[in-house]
Amino acid sequence: MSASDDTIEVRAKNTSVDHESKDGMNDSAAVNAEYAGDYASEDEQPLAWSRFREYAQDFFSEFLGTMILLLFGDGVVAQVVLSDDAKGDYQSISWGWGIGVMFGVYVGGKSGGHLNPAVTLANCVFRGHPWKKFPVYFMAQLLGAMTGAAIVYGNYRSAIDAYEGGSNIRTVTGDHATAGIFCTYPASFMTRTGMVFSEFISSTILQFVIFALTDANNIGAGPLTPLCLFFLIFGIGACFGWETGYAINLARDFGPRLVSYMIGYGHEVWSFGGYYFWIPMVMPFLGCLFGGFLYDTFIYTGPSPMNTPWLGLKRLVHPRKTRSPWTVSNV
Amino acid sequence: MSASDDTIEVRAKNTSVDHESKDGMNDSAAVNAEYAGDYASEDEQPLAWSRFREYAQDFFSEFLGTMILLLFGDGVVAQVVLSDDAKGDYQSISWGWGIGVMFGVYVGGKSGGHLNPAVTLANCVFRGHPWKKFPVYFMAQLLGAMTGAAIVYGNYRSAIDAYEGGSNIRTVTGDHATAGIFCTYPASFMTRTGMVFSEFISSTILQFVIFALTDANNIGAGPLTPLCLFFLIFGIGACFGWETGYAINLARDFGPRLVSYMIGYGHEVWSFGGYYFWIPMVMPFLGCLFGGFLYDTFIYTGPSPMNTPWLGLKRLVHPRKTRSPWTVSNV
Amino acid sequence: MSASDDTIEVRAKNTSVDHESKDGMNDSAAVNAEYAGDYASEDEQPLAWSRFREYAQDFFSEFLGTMILLLFGDGVVAQVVLSDDAKGDYQSISWGWGIGVMFGVYVGGKSGGHLNPAVTLANCVFRGHPWKKFPVYFMAQLLGAMTGAAIVYGNYRSAIDAYEGGSNIRTVTGDHATAGIFCTYPASFMTRTGMVFSEFISSTILQFVIFALTDANNIGAGPLTPLCLFFLIFGIGACFGWETGYAINLARDFGPRLVSYMIGYGHEVWSFGGYYFWIPMVMPFLGCLFGGFLYDTFIYTGPSPMNTPWLGLKRLVHPRKTRSPWTVSNV
Amino acid sequence: MSASDDTIEVRAKNTSVDHESKDGMNDSAAVNAEYAGDYASEDEQPLAWSRFREYAQDFFSEFLGTMILLLFGDGVVAQVVLSDDAKGDYQSISWGWGIGVMFGVYVGGKSGGHLNPAVTLANCVFRGHPWKKFPVYFMAQLLGAMTGAAIVYGNYRSAIDAYEGGSNIRTVTGDHATAGIFCTYPASFMTRTGMVFSEFISSTILQFVIFALTDANNIGAGPLTPLCLFFLIFGIGACFGWETGYAINLARDFGPRLVSYMIGYGHEVWSFGGYYFWIPMVMPFLGCLFGGFLYDTFIYTGPSPMNTPWLGLKRLVHPRKTRSPWTVSNV
Repeated sequence: MSASDDTIEVRAKNTSVDHESKDGMNDSAAVNAEYAGDYASEDEQPLAWSRFREYAQDFFSEFLGTMILLLFGDGVVAQVVLSDDAKGDYQSISWGWGIGVMFGVYVGGKSGGHLNPAVTLANCVFRGHPWKKFPVYFMAQLLGAMTGAAIVYGNYRSAIDAYEGGSNIRTVTGDHATAGIFCTYPASFMTRTGMVFSEFISSTILQFVIFALTDANNIGAGPLTPLCLFFLIFGIGACFGWETGYAINLARDFGPRLVSYMIGYGHEVWSFGGYYFWIPMVMPFLGCLFGGFLYDTFIYTGPSPMNTPWLGLKRLVHPRKTRSPWTVSNV
Repeated sequence: MSASDDTIEVRAKNTSVDHESKDGMNDSAAVNAEYAGDYASEDEQPLAWSRFREYAQDFFSEFLGTMILLLFGDGVVAQVVLSDDAKGDYQSISWGWGIGVMFGVYVGGKSGGHLNPAVTLANCVFRGHPWKKFPVYFMAQLLGAMTGAAIVYGNYRSAIDAYEGGSNIRTVTGDHATAGIFCTYPASFMTRTGMVFSEFISSTILQFVIFALTDANNIGAGPLTPLCLFFLIFGIGACFGWETGYAINLARDFGPRLVSYMIGYGHEVWSFGGYYFWIPMVMPFLGCLFGGFLYDTFIYTGPSPMNTPWLGLKRLVHPRKTRSPWTVSNV
Repeated sequence: MSASDDTIEVRAKNTSVDHESKDGMNDSAAVNAEYAGDYASEDEQPLAWSRFREYAQDFFSEFLGTMILLLFGDGVVAQVVLSDDAKGDYQSISWGWGIGVMFGVYVGGKSGGHLNPAVTLANCVFRGHPWKKFPVYFMAQLLGAMTGAAIVYGNYRSAIDAYEGGSNIRTVTGDHATAGIFCTYPASFMTRTGMVFSEFISSTILQFVIFALTDANNIGAGPLTPLCLFFLIFGIGACFGWETGYAINLARDFGPRLVSYMIGYGHEVWSFGGYYFWIPMVMPFLGCLFGGFLYDTFIYTGPSPMNTPWLGLKRLVHPRKTRSPWTVSNV
Repeated sequence: MSASDDTIEVRAKNTSVDHESKDGMNDSAAVNAEYAGDYASEDEQPLAWSRFREYAQDFFSEFLGTMILLLFGDGVVAQVVLSDDAKGDYQSISWGWGIGVMFGVYVGGKSGGHLNPAVTLANCVFRGHPWKKFPVYFMAQLLGAMTGAAIVYGNYRSAIDAYEGGSNIRTVTGDHATAGIFCTYPASFMTRTGMVFSEFISSTILQFVIFALTDANNIGAGPLTPLCLFFLIFGIGACFGWETGYAINLARDFGPRLVSYMIGYGHEVWSFGGYYFWIPMVMPFLGCLFGGFLYDTFIYTGPSPMNTPWLGLKRLVHPRKTRSPWTVSNV
């Protein structure tokens, strides 16, 4: 929680220190003075757009955060693959995805920066995130991922043409296949069981560590959380990224897969690896649920179904009101 | 804003903790005592130089910050190119530019550490940075970049001679071309549209994320901002750095290009890639404006034209007084 | 100590700021409200499991922390070895182990995140960690390491089969040996003395720096400690990792060695390098004790046997009561 | 200064939070209770060793800090050179030296963690560091560097024998030269002027950025300073490390050079590159002085000769008393 406390403390202080603000990188405090007039009037009748944005904050936040994730993530794979490792190597890919998550979280912070339906699900089940928000988050993440992948395609289109050998050639397999830029495909030696297990364990580690990083009763990463997420994704890529490409996220994998299908990579995007595509759709949910279950069962002492009579099933009987602390927090 | 609050809190505290200062790395607190006498006198009649420096603080700050950026940035490219990848690889270049921005911001913090005319423009448009400062920042950044590039040339001159095969040979293309040390040149397969789009999207991401990092109503990076900028530049280089070399900054690209022209790399520094040179001059401005527009429209709730009646056009009618919070903050 | 102070401050503040919580990544504060009812009842009769977990906190914490360490650590070696350096290189291994320790500490923070029996011993000798806890920590670390190694084996089983050339082939030496995935084996040119010294010096540096990072009278890393541990392990791997593979931890080396023996790597896991296996079991203890001795003798001014009459031997005469601050701190 | 304030705040708080300490990684607070008895008695008659250590704190601190720097720094070069790049590459060397400085500063924090005579000189000239301490710092740094280099030699002796082809062979030049492990040698194409300039500019950047990082009136790195130093040294190595090996430190270069001479690398350690050895002894002082001069002249507004009548020459006339804030701060 320290992250939030920081920002709050800060706002409190700004009033007193505006005129000595040293941090040139953020002018908002200083500007407060200037727009005061406009704001006064605004308090009475807020702008229509501001009202709508407040209403749609979660959607915009997750959409843009996940878009940033895919811009860096698919972007780095494109650069490494298309330049034949001249402009990066496997390690660069770990950097790219780690950085994508780090900044996706900074961008999407107002909605929690989940960027991943499985993380959202785990927050609904274990952290009281309102269920009614799940569909909104899910759609925002999926569409954001598709947008990011489409932009990467637009940016690297001429490079893909050069690499594939023609603007009408798009291949999933072969020496100059480029489908791997957008979504994950399993290594050739993998068994079905191996694919399932690899995605499951990676997702379990992901959620297990995320809950540790955000546990104020443990060490907790506080303001370092986004930076730690860089290391977490980097680590999963370096340690469990080979066999299935560590999708660990339906939005990140299925969204771009759809995009690549629309682009014209053909039916193989679905059939490759014995219709592997469903594994990174399903397993992240199971893995993240299991990771959350492990953390709450053995370490977490805060409020959680694990620490509540009847595993907190009461909530299902008396669902929370719309006006949850989150809506407030996003005002 | 926490960065600024930190420093302010700190100064407040120092008075009480001088004699227990543990951080040997910064002796200023301790020295306060010592120079007290001199200072007393100074309060009455400040030194002429101090007065001038206060007046020219923005210029010095941006000049030196951008110089540091180029020292690391052009320096790493020189080392990698001239040593034929023996003393670094493509990833080292991402490190070098990221580190250059990180320390450029630490050095140029008093003026906001923009280091980039496009970032300054976006701050003028969206964060109320005084327009009258734009020309000062622009010149300081351009001259700082030229100085940095010139120093790098001086440092690597003998290595360039050895690599090019003679002290009078300076080539933009060919097996031993070294012009790429100073400014960016597009990859061979790129179309004009591709170049424009690549610079545009990179600059958009740059400004979009910078506004997220400095948004106190979002997570915000606070004191971690310079470190986050390292990751941001590293990421842009790893994910979008291949096609046009991610100039995303007029000062960083045009300044050193001028220097390389003066050095004697010839007319090709302008003509290469179908007179590509204007793209990294123009697109960063458009990209950063669009990135700022996106962030303020969909996420930013603080004072911004997007959140103000008539998009804050009032300001154009009643421009701010000279004595803006920034001048104060730089005292 | 600042890490702890953070979390404490934070909890203090939460009560007042729940409804303005900005950090979407941690919902616990918000949930407090919700589960209030259930909690009230809980105060009277805590759940049986919560009571047991409180009792076994140290064990769970060290077990899971060390498991995470091995998941990343053995995982990265597996990926690099089995992919023939296609999916990583030696540097990736430094990344993997560093990240493993970093997140192992975040996960195991409630018990101090030792993850290493030698570090636990040094804390008992120099920092008053209760001796009665040593066996618990030791077993938890050993079993956690074995579990982590077993999971990695499960995850990479098919890849190992493909690499070794058959599901019944497991080799310690040879062109396709994979035993190095699980535990360390010395370089061929090493003498017995060299092995002993290499493990000793690495462990000395480990404990010496850890005590510096956690010394509140020195600079101290505070909340940055887990991140610093990433750099420390990375550095030991990059600087002293070649000769013996920097085990510097009985749990990390002996645990997985047992697992690999059970898997069927045969007697060579013990006999290789002239029965080298005992060196990473014994030397880390001696090295960490010496590192702690050096730090406390020459730098540490806090409470330590070095700074106490009779080197604090009193404690041996009057051992502390069960109810030490730690048990409290883990409530 | 925030680093120091942190630690101070912290100590203040500990008293109140001992029994809720969450940060298991630092037990000192908890132990306070335990040793209270012993301490009481100690207040009356402190231990002889504690008294001596307090007196020699600066020496121990700089000695051990510089030793750590060389352990990582020379260690990584040894591993990369002797393993023929199998266990690291040029980038690993940047990592190793960066990490060495980072932890050298954490270890040597009580004396300011200069680790470099040139940095100490700059602090004497520009930050009122007592001149009388310069010789102590100088000797401590030199001896610490020699010790670190000697330990690295001991650790890698068998590897050096294997690489050189015999235990009595130690070469500075040739295919299997290993002298480069200990100190720096210039690249073959370098002119005398080039060597001088390369060391000068690197040292200038070093001190210029250090003063920026520790300037509480600029952004300032506060508790992030040691981490930033990692990036600074990494950057100097990646951008200016090729031509002369970025010694930028008399202790780091001359100390190990002496050691390698004692080991038996012969007269060539002095004569190589036209008796290059004096350049990394002299230029760092000039470079750091110039870097400090630049920062204080154009940016620093705190107490500095640049900001003082007669450039603070008064001090030379009335030198400070022995009992300076530092001696106090190190009590």
